[in-house]
Amino acid sequence: MVESLILGFGLASLAAAWLFSMRVQSVSVEKGASSPEEAERLNKIAKAIRDGAMAFLFREYKTLAIFIFVFALVIGFLIDDPATTEVREGLYSSVAFVVGAVTSILAGFIGMRTATAGNVRTAVSARESLEKGFVTAINAGAVMGFGLSGLAVLGMLGCYMALDNVLKGQEAHTIMEILSGFGLGGSSVALFARVGGGIYTKAADVGADLVGKVEAGIPEDDPRNPAVIADNVGDNVGDVAGMGADLFGSVAESTCAAMVIGAIAFKGQPSALLYPLAISCLGIPSSFIGILAFKAKTEEQVQGALKNMLILATVLMAIMSYFLTMYLLPTTPFTLGTRTGVTAQGVYLAFLSGLVSGYLIGWLTEYFTSHAYGPTREVAKSSETGTATNIIYGLALGYNSAVIPSLLIAATVVIAVSQAGMYGIALSAIGMLGTISVALTIDAYGPVADNAGGLAEMAHMGADIRKRTDILDAAGNTTAAMGKGFAIGSAALTALALFSAYVTQCQMDSIDLLNPWVMAGLLVGGALTCAFSAMTMRSVGLAALAMIEEVRRQFRSIPGLMEGTAEAEYAKCVDIATQASLREMLRPGLMVVFTPILIGWLFGQEMLAGLLIGALVTAVIFAISMANSGGSWDNAKKYIESGAHGGRGTEAHKAAVVGDTVGDPFKDTSGPALNILIKLMAIISLVFAPFVHNMGGVLVKMLQH
Amino acid sequence: MVESLILGFGLASLAAAWLFSMRVQSVSVEKGASSPEEAERLNKIAKAIRDGAMAFLFREYKTLAIFIFVFALVIGFLIDDPATTEVREGLYSSVAFVVGAVTSILAGFIGMRTATAGNVRTAVSARESLEKGFVTAINAGAVMGFGLSGLAVLGMLGCYMALDNVLKGQEAHTIMEILSGFGLGGSSVALFARVGGGIYTKAADVGADLVGKVEAGIPEDDPRNPAVIADNVGDNVGDVAGMGADLFGSVAESTCAAMVIGAIAFKGQPSALLYPLAISCLGIPSSFIGILAFKAKTEEQVQGALKNMLILATVLMAIMSYFLTMYLLPTTPFTLGTRTGVTAQGVYLAFLSGLVSGYLIGWLTEYFTSHAYGPTREVAKSSETGTATNIIYGLALGYNSAVIPSLLIAATVVIAVSQAGMYGIALSAIGMLGTISVALTIDAYGPVADNAGGLAEMAHMGADIRKRTDILDAAGNTTAAMGKGFAIGSAALTALALFSAYVTQCQMDSIDLLNPWVMAGLLVGGALTCAFSAMTMRSVGLAALAMIEEVRRQFRSIPGLMEGTAEAEYAKCVDIATQASLREMLRPGLMVVFTPILIGWLFGQEMLAGLLIGALVTAVIFAISMANSGGSWDNAKKYIESGAHGGRGTEAHKAAVVGDTVGDPFKDTSGPALNILIKLMAIISLVFAPFVHNMGGVLVKMLQH
Repeated sequence: MVESLILGFGLASLAAAWLFSMRVQSVSVEKGASSPEEAERLNKIAKAIRDGAMAFLFREYKTLAIFIFVFALVIGFLIDDPATTEVREGLYSSVAFVVGAVTSILAGFIGMRTATAGNVRTAVSARESLEKGFVTAINAGAVMGFGLSGLAVLGMLGCYMALDNVLKGQEAHTIMEILSGFGLGGSSVALFARVGGGIYTKAADVGADLVGKVEAGIPEDDPRNPAVIADNVGDNVGDVAGMGADLFGSVAESTCAAMVIGAIAFKGQPSALLYPLAISCLGIPSSFIGILAFKAKTEEQVQGALKNMLILATVLMAIMSYFLTMYLLPTTPFTLGTRTGVTAQGVYLAFLSGLVSGYLIGWLTEYFTSHAYGPTREVAKSSETGTATNIIYGLALGYNSAVIPSLLIAATVVIAVSQAGMYGIALSAIGMLGTISVALTIDAYGPVADNAGGLAEMAHMGADIRKRTDILDAAGNTTAAMGKGFAIGSAALTALALFSAYVTQCQMDSIDLLNPWVMAGLLVGGALTCAFSAMTMRSVGLAALAMIEEVRRQFRSIPGLMEGTAEAEYAKCVDIATQASLREMLRPGLMVVFTPILIGWLFGQEMLAGLLIGALVTAVIFAISMANSGGSWDNAKKYIESGAHGGRGTEAHKAAVVGDTVGDPFKDTSGPALNILIKLMAIISLVFAPFVHNMGGVLVKMLQH
Repeated sequence: MVESLILGFGLASLAAAWLFSMRVQSVSVEKGASSPEEAERLNKIAKAIRDGAMAFLFREYKTLAIFIFVFALVIGFLIDDPATTEVREGLYSSVAFVVGAVTSILAGFIGMRTATAGNVRTAVSARESLEKGFVTAINAGAVMGFGLSGLAVLGMLGCYMALDNVLKGQEAHTIMEILSGFGLGGSSVALFARVGGGIYTKAADVGADLVGKVEAGIPEDDPRNPAVIADNVGDNVGDVAGMGADLFGSVAESTCAAMVIGAIAFKGQPSALLYPLAISCLGIPSSFIGILAFKAKTEEQVQGALKNMLILATVLMAIMSYFLTMYLLPTTPFTLGTRTGVTAQGVYLAFLSGLVSGYLIGWLTEYFTSHAYGPTREVAKSSETGTATNIIYGLALGYNSAVIPSLLIAATVVIAVSQAGMYGIALSAIGMLGTISVALTIDAYGPVADNAGGLAEMAHMGADIRKRTDILDAAGNTTAAMGKGFAIGSAALTALALFSAYVTQCQMDSIDLLNPWVMAGLLVGGALTCAFSAMTMRSVGLAALAMIEEVRRQFRSIPGLMEGTAEAEYAKCVDIATQASLREMLRPGLMVVFTPILIGWLFGQEMLAGLLIGALVTAVIFAISMANSGGSWDNAKKYIESGAHGGRGTEAHKAAVVGDTVGDPFKDTSGPALNILIKLMAIISLVFAPFVHNMGGVLVKMLQH
């Protein structure tokens, strides 16, 4: 019964994605362009971006395939213990892992295809009217939003039903344990998409800006710049593929965590067992209604429409989920792990606390990063006294902006656990991710609108069109900042949920802070956050350097490039950025993947628990402050460019430009990459919990003997 | 017996301070100067600095007096519970609190008097030879080093003996509990000296630089700059008074924590009971020998001499403390709290782990911040591509530099606890602070040498003398960075020791990470670190602004100032910086003092425990990364100024100057202030433990009903 419901929603989500995709495809570039020449130019550039994006994806998939193959073997080998269990957990987990990874890849691929088809169509739609442009960009984003939700739900349901069939008669918690491999698969793809993609996007951006704008003195999005296509590809790689894989991971992981924790309590009650998956599905109709309900006809309405979509979807979700919870969960108080007397209302409250605090974190992000409010205006003003004060105030703003979100997460934890124990945390994470379809739609809208602007510029569509795409783009920037806050908050709760599931799996009744190994774990977790941040920041620098050299080489060696008579070798730049980003993500990636396994194996499950929490607490404040410092620097610069504090060309503007450049790796690479750090380490700990529990702590045991 | 030993060492330390002070006084400015006019000029400027320093101190004392009075009442009122205890704990604690505060003030006062007498004498000694200058500066620093150690030891011993006498027949742990008020007193002074002083020193520095160097175009240390005296005063306020009060607090707090934890185990065994105090005393002879053993005749020898002093003292301390431990502690295994089978050797190992890791953290700090090594050279190189890359690489260096110190602290915790339980952590903190006399000597040497350079410049003593003082100053800069690393490491262990004592006092057997209140506490602790950092960074900005306005006003309204015919109103600048710094420290100060009491009262002892650890884990990485980013930017600039990457006047140099300015509040205000955050919150929790334990968690209880 509940399976059919989930199946129905999953298929409906895919249908919605298909519908939105058709609406995007229905816009004809040839008909929308002012002349066949313009259409040809547009198609040519759009093809270059699409080819570049596909080149990145396929190169990434090649590396990813090796990683998935090796890691599937590791999972099969380390978790499987034929001597003691009758189920080949390792084997099944590694299959679930591969399915999770492939599903995430598929979702990302669909999103990227549509985004790179939607950008040029948004540009031509904008010629007709602002409203048309808005609708096309939103439709393109919605393909990602609904395609991903649908695939995530169907993937998990399919995996569960297959396992349930094959492992007939097994305990529900064994099945759920194996299912968490699915989450690990999704998260592994996120490692490549978020970290590798984050390095790619900023290397391309910095490379294009530094040589193009500063050295060669040509404007942004100028087709003579060899890195311009890579830069546009980067927007998609970062905000479509990266964000998508990140949130796919969060949804899969938090749902798996909830089902692992609930498996023992709800065995034999399929409707309660699959409740976490079912409630996730409600985001699909809520988001659908939200997106269709608002249009934007004028400049003022664009940002409002995006925000209203999110608000309406949140409210609908809050209402619908109450009834579903009452319907699926037992009506009498039940026991969850060590918690007795949990009620369906309590579980709903836990869910709601996540949903609400996710919305508030998004709103706070906007408050701190938009130049409509005090904080970013203060950063803009501080640029008047020079670069140093701009940097100091921007950093201080970032630290400050992390305070209330941390408190909100703390409050959510207290509410969730007091209502429903560990299960409550997982539910609060699912709640925060409830509106993922609309959130992702808005997020993917950003690079589509941004690319549309680039296309309008490169294809010389005229200042009118460029102005319209700029309006669409500006609204996307603000909502992108909100999306980041939301991604971090949900990553924190997801990591906590996975941590809870890990603890449940390791049969730990308590994790004592007075145990020196736990305390040491906390400190090592903090150290990991630092090491990871430092690595990713330097990675951007090194990858950007490779780009800069290539762009310089082309300007030097291609005759007629500056004059516009010869064409730049765009593909070469795309290739360099792709290679550099995948090379540079290797070290941080390996650190994230193997540290939990090593620490657990050498020092035991307690230290690993401490490590997860230490990394979480520090990564939350690092990630939020980095994202918001970066967002604020960006908008402070835009505020000055709009005429404040003297406008362009002043010393204040120069200072703000430096701040914006510092903020780039902060907000688009290091900050978001920390989401992956905490989630991936937590799910690896969960999947390898049987190994750590049985074989962990070898060094400690040796020392004690 | 053990009391006489401690008394003897304490008095010997004061005698050593007096001896060093006599040696400083024996240098005659009149005889050392090249002419009576030069002597007059020197004396006049030195007097201005001394008067400025005293003006700051007395203004600070006034505010401090109010704070001490109010807080003594709070302590007396909240801790005292006549209904349930026969001892008026609150009353005695508040007396111990006042004694601790007054002792710390006295130590700081002595240090400041000597430092501001030593600067001018170092300048005239430098005329004779580099060696003479070095010796005079070291002697001046040693007055602080030994005066502070002696007063700390005697203060704690005196308090203990008085309490032991008055409260005859009481349990040792009641006495030790009351004694921890002494530590709180010391730490409260540190709040004002470190946070207020940190804001003062950077406000004066930035104010002097921005208007003087940049706007008016006059060189550093030019007497026409109205802020020049305030800038020189600031060096003393930050590195003598601030660092001194910080370390006084650490010594007093870690010793109190050790004695509180050991009180139950060692009751009736005074030698074991006072062992923590006795072992601290060994640093006095070790440091004395270390300081006298090395001289510096040439430029190359200066830095080596400073480092060798520290190494020799560390080695001597390690050897002597082994024998004292064997002598004072029981020879058969004993029980400490929940730990059985603790041996004297185990306690020694805990002590040693702190001593060694303190040395290693200092060394790592040097590795990351000195331009003799790769990391800072990379920051210097990154300046070639502009300010943004300089900032990004500097921040990444800071994050990176926090990794190994965190691991070292984690290793120390594991060794200490596995050897001697909670007591071991306190002992490791005492170990790290073992060489405090020599560490403080080297630290206070820095501003004395720096001031000597300023005096040589302002009194026109000639380029030769200035070159010698520059050599002395440069060595001081490197050791100052080491001192910062050491201060942070010891603050972390001290805070952990206090946390252990707090947990012991609250009778908590375990602190469960799975308890949502503990988890919420961790997150709130992280938020506090962020809030505190943001506040202190903005405070510097605001205080500097007040300074800038005053300096501009003087240049505008005093005729003949730029021409050198009229004199600037130095005292006015000193006054403005003093007022602004004390005003700006109010908010962060109140937050630090009242948050633990409020959280404990409203949410209970578990959440407070989580909060202390959350703040600790995040503050360690924030403090280390801020201090090292700042130190590295400073030295990268110096490296470029020495001719690398094109030297002065290049774009690289300009970028490095911006980095250095960003680093100023990082390394001298926000970073060191975090030491106070974690220690002060921990000792407040310890002192208010009876209140929190008995009356805490009112809100939680209300919610549950």
